[in-house]
Amino acid sequence: MMGKIICVGLGPGDPELMSVRADRLVRAAHNVAYFRKAGRSGQARRIVEGMLAPQAVEYPMEYPVTTEIAFDSATYNDVLARFYDDWAGRLADLAQTGDIVVLCEGDPFFYGSFMHLHVRLQGRCDVEVVPGITGMTGCWHATGVPMTWGDDVLSVLMGTLSEAELVRHMTGADALAIMKTGRNLPKVRRALASAGRLQDAWLVERGTMPGQRVARLTETTIDDCPYFAIVLVHGRGRRPVAVEAAAGAAA
Amino acid sequence: MMGKIICVGLGPGDPELMSVRADRLVRAAHNVAYFRKAGRSGQARRIVEGMLAPQAVEYPMEYPVTTEIAFDSATYNDVLARFYDDWAGRLADLAQTGDIVVLCEGDPFFYGSFMHLHVRLQGRCDVEVVPGITGMTGCWHATGVPMTWGDDVLSVLMGTLSEAELVRHMTGADALAIMKTGRNLPKVRRALASAGRLQDAWLVERGTMPGQRVARLTETTIDDCPYFAIVLVHGRGRRPVAVEAAAGAAA
Ligand SMILES: C[S@@+](CC[C@H](N)C(=O)[O-])C[C@H]1O[C@@H](n2cnc3c(N)ncnc32)[C@H](O)[C@@H]1O
Ligand SMILES: C[S@@+](CC[C@H](N)C(=O)[O-])C[C@H]1O[C@@H](n2cnc3c(N)ncnc32)[C@H](O)[C@@H]1O
Repeated sequence: MMGKIICVGLGPGDPELMSVRADRLVRAAHNVAYFRKAGRSGQARRIVEGMLAPQAVEYPMEYPVTTEIAFDSATYNDVLARFYDDWAGRLADLAQTGDIVVLCEGDPFFYGSFMHLHVRLQGRCDVEVVPGITGMTGCWHATGVPMTWGDDVLSVLMGTLSEAELVRHMTGADALAIMKTGRNLPKVRRALASAGRLQDAWLVERGTMPGQRVARLTETTIDDCPYFAIVLVHGRGRRPVAVEAAAGAAA
Repeated sequence: MMGKIICVGLGPGDPELMSVRADRLVRAAHNVAYFRKAGRSGQARRIVEGMLAPQAVEYPMEYPVTTEIAFDSATYNDVLARFYDDWAGRLADLAQTGDIVVLCEGDPFFYGSFMHLHVRLQGRCDVEVVPGITGMTGCWHATGVPMTWGDDVLSVLMGTLSEAELVRHMTGADALAIMKTGRNLPKVRRALASAGRLQDAWLVERGTMPGQRVARLTETTIDDCPYFAIVLVHGRGRRPVAVEAAAGAAA
């Protein structure tokens, strides 16, 4: 029996925000693979805690590097490329005997690590991808405030961009989601201030996960934040105004 | 018994892409409200077809205007504001006696009509909002190609923006999602061409819904498309390269 590789988007963290299809696939899986940092349990694995079948076989794919090697060095690229090559091969071999479910936080096609396996698996075996609610969607719900209205332009930015690039994009857009904040938080804060948007910014740590924290960015003094953290600025688009006078005039 | 208003994000269209929580709430609902154009069944209602309890009471909220009045006119604003005022009042009254589930396509806080009720309901009754997979997420999965990588900047644009604004944002970003295309398609096409991105653009009609269509934008000649249509340009971010030589050197 020839199986396929099914990458399942798990959503932002709360297991109830998984799709009906993802929930069913995860519970029925015989083989389950997921990325994690060495020595960590892994966020994707944590989301499905208590859902896996007792006989499910797990394949943790442990990143070979984290912060020891400079992120943009050739060495980092090589090591990571070999890691993805290696796991793409192992999963393709495993798929000869049955389906494999690969767990992915949020949506797999939205800055997800699985995409590095996805390109490598093309033509080697059947690959299916199940969409998920993105982390940023979970985060704007954590603020309780609608994100985008009317003609708002939403810009999704990585905290790893240069300060100048951040400022340029922040100035142009109405709504902002800045991911990969972590140690980039001071830079993100400065860029927001330059763009005149710091007063409107929120920091959401671990959106919809246990330990969720939501704060105005100006009310936090921290210079670092967890890996799962997003800075948000809500849009301000055109919206029909509720005018008492208008309602009166209509009567 | 005092109830609450629960707005449920239904995802892009495929009922299996609803969250586990949304699925449960929809099936258990006694009162179900949803927006629709007069004379139409309504996309949100269509997604839950076959899921509602037999005794569920339905409240279709029919938009008073569609295209008869200029979109940016004061009259349009007034009529729409009164419509939202009216329904916010009716739902708040209904909530005195029990929960009401409001259906919303995609994610309710992402350009969703429910937000106009949400602002009006503040302080009047309990409101809960359940996140959903956005339409654009469903659409990029329909193309089968990952959307954003590495440091890619994603810009979400409305086809209703001016051509000059579209060009400016399209030039600045790596990945693009252009919503509310419809009759704006020729303008969107011209703007993409000016920004040098037309060759990379896809048109996804009814992503994950029955009748889904996916095409390169250059391969379609239509000047109009359905309301549920999104133009996408995938990102091109930094990604670790699979180099045979690198893999060899590692051995
Ligand atoms: C490599 S990206 C993966 C994104 C994921 N595929 C998604 O759809 O959200 C990792 C970044 O996502 C953001 N993120 C994802 N889920 C989050 C959550 N629940 N709370 C806060 N940030 C989150 C963080 O900024 C983190 O640095
Ligand atoms: C008023 S916005 C509502 C967006 C919705 N709340 C969401 O999260 O996707 C309506 C626009 O969303 C886009 N859209 C939503 N779902 C779609 C789908 N499944 N396929 C194509 N376009 C979709 C279309 O561009 C449409 O004009």
